[in-house]
Amino acid sequence: MKVLIVGGVAGGASAAARMRRVNEDAEIILFEKGEHISFANCGLPYYIGEVIKEKDKLLVQTPEKMKERFRIDVRINSEVTKIDTVNKRVEVLNHAENKVYTENYDKLILSPGAEPIRPGLPGIDSKRIFTLRNIPDTFRIKDYVDRMNPKRAVVVGAGFIGLEVAENLHLRGVKVTVVELADHVIGPLDYDMAALVHQHLKTKHVEFYLKDAVEAFEDEDAWVNVKLSSGRNLKADMVIMGIGVKPESKIAKEAGIAIGKTGGILVNEYMQTSNEDIYAVGDAVEIRDFVSGKEALIPLAGPANKQGRIAANNIAGLNEKFGGTQGTSIVKVFDITVAVTGNNERILKRNGIEYEKSYTHSASHAGYYPGAIPMSIKLLFGKKDGRILGAQIVGYEGVDKRMDVISTAMRANMTVYDLETLELSYAPPYSSAKDPVNIAGFTASNILKNDVKVFHWDEVGSIDAEKVMLIDVRSPEEHKLGNIKGSVNISVDELRDRQDEVPKDKDIYVYCQVGLRGYLASRILMQKGYKVKNLSGGYKTYQVAVQ
Amino acid sequence: MKVLIVGGVAGGASAAARMRRVNEDAEIILFEKGEHISFANCGLPYYIGEVIKEKDKLLVQTPEKMKERFRIDVRINSEVTKIDTVNKRVEVLNHAENKVYTENYDKLILSPGAEPIRPGLPGIDSKRIFTLRNIPDTFRIKDYVDRMNPKRAVVVGAGFIGLEVAENLHLRGVKVTVVELADHVIGPLDYDMAALVHQHLKTKHVEFYLKDAVEAFEDEDAWVNVKLSSGRNLKADMVIMGIGVKPESKIAKEAGIAIGKTGGILVNEYMQTSNEDIYAVGDAVEIRDFVSGKEALIPLAGPANKQGRIAANNIAGLNEKFGGTQGTSIVKVFDITVAVTGNNERILKRNGIEYEKSYTHSASHAGYYPGAIPMSIKLLFGKKDGRILGAQIVGYEGVDKRMDVISTAMRANMTVYDLETLELSYAPPYSSAKDPVNIAGFTASNILKNDVKVFHWDEVGSIDAEKVMLIDVRSPEEHKLGNIKGSVNISVDELRDRQDEVPKDKDIYVYCQVGLRGYLASRILMQKGYKVKNLSGGYKTYQVAVQ
Ligand SMILES: Cc1cc2nc3c(=O)[nH]c(=O)nc-3n(C[C@H](O)[C@H](O)[C@H](O)COP(=O)(O)OP(=O)(O)OC[C@H]3O[C@@H](n4cnc5c(N)ncnc54)[C@H](O)[C@@H]3O)c2cc1C
Ligand SMILES: Cc1cc2nc3c(=O)[nH]c(=O)nc-3n(C[C@H](O)[C@H](O)[C@H](O)COP(=O)(O)OP(=O)(O)OC[C@H]3O[C@@H](n4cnc5c(N)ncnc54)[C@H](O)[C@@H]3O)c2cc1C
Ligand SMILES: CC(C)(COP(=O)(O)OP(=O)(O)OC[C@H]1O[C@@H](n2cnc3c(N)ncnc32)[C@H](O)[C@@H]1OP(=O)(O)O)[C@@H](O)C(=O)NCCC(=O)NCCS
Ligand SMILES: CC(C)(COP(=O)(O)OP(=O)(O)OC[C@H]1O[C@@H](n2cnc3c(N)ncnc32)[C@H](O)[C@@H]1OP(=O)(O)O)[C@@H](O)C(=O)NCCC(=O)NCCS
Repeated sequence: MKVLIVGGVAGGASAAARMRRVNEDAEIILFEKGEHISFANCGLPYYIGEVIKEKDKLLVQTPEKMKERFRIDVRINSEVTKIDTVNKRVEVLNHAENKVYTENYDKLILSPGAEPIRPGLPGIDSKRIFTLRNIPDTFRIKDYVDRMNPKRAVVVGAGFIGLEVAENLHLRGVKVTVVELADHVIGPLDYDMAALVHQHLKTKHVEFYLKDAVEAFEDEDAWVNVKLSSGRNLKADMVIMGIGVKPESKIAKEAGIAIGKTGGILVNEYMQTSNEDIYAVGDAVEIRDFVSGKEALIPLAGPANKQGRIAANNIAGLNEKFGGTQGTSIVKVFDITVAVTGNNERILKRNGIEYEKSYTHSASHAGYYPGAIPMSIKLLFGKKDGRILGAQIVGYEGVDKRMDVISTAMRANMTVYDLETLELSYAPPYSSAKDPVNIAGFTASNILKNDVKVFHWDEVGSIDAEKVMLIDVRSPEEHKLGNIKGSVNISVDELRDRQDEVPKDKDIYVYCQVGLRGYLASRILMQKGYKVKNLSGGYKTYQVAVQ
Repeated sequence: MKVLIVGGVAGGASAAARMRRVNEDAEIILFEKGEHISFANCGLPYYIGEVIKEKDKLLVQTPEKMKERFRIDVRINSEVTKIDTVNKRVEVLNHAENKVYTENYDKLILSPGAEPIRPGLPGIDSKRIFTLRNIPDTFRIKDYVDRMNPKRAVVVGAGFIGLEVAENLHLRGVKVTVVELADHVIGPLDYDMAALVHQHLKTKHVEFYLKDAVEAFEDEDAWVNVKLSSGRNLKADMVIMGIGVKPESKIAKEAGIAIGKTGGILVNEYMQTSNEDIYAVGDAVEIRDFVSGKEALIPLAGPANKQGRIAANNIAGLNEKFGGTQGTSIVKVFDITVAVTGNNERILKRNGIEYEKSYTHSASHAGYYPGAIPMSIKLLFGKKDGRILGAQIVGYEGVDKRMDVISTAMRANMTVYDLETLELSYAPPYSSAKDPVNIAGFTASNILKNDVKVFHWDEVGSIDAEKVMLIDVRSPEEHKLGNIKGSVNISVDELRDRQDEVPKDKDIYVYCQVGLRGYLASRILMQKGYKVKNLSGGYKTYQVAVQ
């Protein structure tokens, strides 16, 4: 059996290694158009920032080692330019020797990845404008920083990679400005959770412009002008384009392999393309969104690695299905950690999935043990069945842990009711007897069971004071420090004694700092016959989101 | 409705608070025989070590605040001495006023906890011998350290609490010796994983004696002699007894409430005792072990809190079941973290559950990003179905995360095959594209699918050199630094070229450092027709366990 693999990094190298393990006798050739295989894409921004100091660390495997250990014929600088599905062979352009040749296959695995989008804007060809995908890109950027000592950088696009680059340039002493078309950073987040990131970026003196787009670049002698649609002009010594990636599906398309409507290569559950001898994996393919079952592009390293393994398994006859991608992802943004899984509100709405949501703010570990610090959790769940549809967490310590727990629960098709029962490891340095995930579960379940009704931060503006009394159930001290306009302060502890101040002929909306005391107040008032709603996430969620 | 609650800490206070939330009108009285309610049991050792500096931090709630917020009638210094199930009332001894009275109930919740075992050894009444359960105990110990400036402490029992106290006394400059009856520290671990903790304790210069027991204490003027069954005599300025706890089931038993064979109060899934109006929760009850379904005592704060909530729910008619306890627990031991869930080998054997096991050693996060540090994972799983039966993890950063993920997967009745597919959040500071849990899943699944056969560290001693060739597939340099006696060195990368050195008429046992290269070597040799076994966990697991 002869297996050819196109693309030598996350999906491709994983497929190659696994292919060898399941078939010692196969002939395996790996083509990589660049100079390196098996490099740490995800580490590249940190090399620019000199967080990762040694170049060699970026190379997880080399062609020589892949040959030695796996007997894989690795061919770098070798671009597969054409797939001939009829004769089952590919055309290869060796860039080093500028030679073209063909290689036949029994099975072909495509893992060509996705390339950074470089919009056709005026001035885009400036030498001061960079994208970041591979090691040469990285060296180019780092070298520019080392040599030119830039003072001002503009990062276009506030996604994961854009923000990682922003942070790493900032570490190098460059003043960074981020420009983002959407109304918030990090697309997979909803606005309310991204607002926490906005707040953090401000404390780091990273400038950012939202709802704004680059219209043109203009090179000057010493800098480049970045012209925004708002009319703003940013002077930059360098620009990083981080507005997203698009699947490298060109050779597949030209070979008549079916392409999905997202532009990714179409594959079935076995990672097989429309041609039964050709498999495709990684950033280049259209996958099923785990939540909606709809087609999506989710370019992440974990899925790419796993899909590579699955493609090899299926070629070896082991029959393995890929179960869809949740989109579990995480990013460090300076001192905070931001993690998401599943669908956000925008996607749920687009897909017409009925959902409810809850916000909680919990300490990373027991409050009485030093170093506890709050994190904010947004949970999205099925209005009827409580199925976990998505989660977003922003905080410091322990965000990754809670995200992985929720992500696992989601994969197991658990509901918010199940989150209540999870038995998570507790000792004071690590968590609380009720872990933040349990608390999120309680809070969400209580909403579904109608033990409490909630309103959300974005409904505050439309409260009708004629019909609704808004009560701040925090302490008078907290109320004084800042409150929602029009609210009356009756602390939860006094509520029972001051019940006569709560009108029976109005709806009662309560809020506290994070939602807990508001919930307690709701329970009291509901049982006394009032129609009550509690502000989910409390003043904390509200204040950050409306700031 | 009048609800009485016995015990005012984890289970009791949780039940009280929840009871109020689900029933605003109930009369709720909470009896606590001690001076404090709702304190942070789990934080007590850290107060002794001055890691937690303020006393107030140990009190999560006070009687006054419970009254204010929840309208709960909290009675401290009030011991419930008798339950009269016929007349539905309890007898209360008010220790402060030395008065006895009765209080009737509609429903009664027992959460009296468990008390430290204090064996009837000669000399046990010495003023230098302490146990640790509550705040007065804590102050007593801390005060003794502050005033007497002890130089040498003996901790009897190397469980969670014993080791936490050992660490905290060590922090205070006391030289600590630990005495443990078993052959290893931390009972819920197996020996091989505990060996990693032994190694760490040695680096911290904590002395410990295993398989040894205290036979007597002898007070001298300036110290106490701790006489061990081995004949050893330890001179100590203070002694902490940490050999376990036993359920406080006395008043329940005297009232004719059924007690389980473990000595805990018998409850059904609704946390209801044999008397339908009496519920019991927390350390005092016998619960179902989630893995075996057998009765067990698992005294942990998470389950106690959750059971308290469930008992209140059921009294309020909300019909909620408790799903059993996995025993997920965690402890910081100096710089390392130790976490367990489910059953260990000892328990699985006792329960006659057929299992297989795997060991993996993975980096806490991407190796190329600074600070990555290895952790060791032992997975126990059903031999036939791959069901996750237990896990043990020892390491530094990220141990809690992996434990919580596995614990969640276990709760969802997932198998080791499911662990392969988990989509966990990956960016270099947090994990690898294949998370340690995925790797543990791959490794375990490969064993079950017979893609590799394994042997374990404790089988090495009985290898018959006549029938078996033992190959070290690491590099010559690694081999030289230490290897298993009788092994021949052929590195995995050379294995194919040196196949003629591998005899066809012998079984081949291979090993490497952590198990990965041994697995690769196994795959090569198996496909070439050899009968091969790989040392699970590699030389690392072996070396630590046999040291
Ligand atoms: C800067 C950066 C940071 C990232 N950080 C994270 C992160 O923290 N977490 C995360 O999950 N993901 C992250 N990612 C995404 C992750 O790296 C990708 O999802 C993953 O690498 C996709 O694997 P792949 O095999 O599909 O594509 P790639 O890893 O991109 O490999 C594709 C390879 O195929 C080669 N190729 C393309 N066409 C051809 C051809 N015709 N012939 C020969 N070779 C060809 C390309 O040169 C390329 O080297 C990051 C990506 C970047 C660029
Ligand atoms: C030092 C220490 C560290 C710990 N660390 C951890 C940890 O890190 N993680 C973890 O999960 N667990 C830990 N635990 C265990 C955890 O604290 C218990 O599992 C939990 O507190 C059990 O809750 P409970 O309500 O059953 O009992 P408790 O919390 O012990 O409360 C029982 C209360 O009932 C009172 N009482 C008993 N009998 C009567 C009576 N007849 N009348 C009136 N009052 C009565 C007692 O005085 C006691 O205050 C630790 C325990 C200790 C002692
Ligand atoms: C380096 C690379 C070629 C490795 O591929 P790989 O060999 O499949 O992956 P690993 O080295 O993690 O090894 C995993 C294999 O070892 C096995 N293994 C790991 N630890 C083991 C242990 N202790 N005992 C036994 N087996 C073990 C696993 O079961 C798995 O084998 P399987 O797939 O046959 O079940 C590929 O992942 C790669 O190129 N990575 C870099 C690029 C990249 O991923 N970029 C994006 C992230 S920055
Ligand atoms: C302090 C103590 C009385 C608290 O009990 P509690 O009120 O049930 O617990 P919490 O304060 O965590 O609040 C949890 C409740 O608030 C709700 N909640 C929490 N955060 C919320 C938020 N942001 N929005 C809405 N509701 C929220 C939860 O849903 C839950 O209510 P529910 O049980 O009715 O669903 C009890 O846990 C205790 O005594 N603890 C100390 C003793 C102990 O546990 N020791 C062992 C560990 S050291």
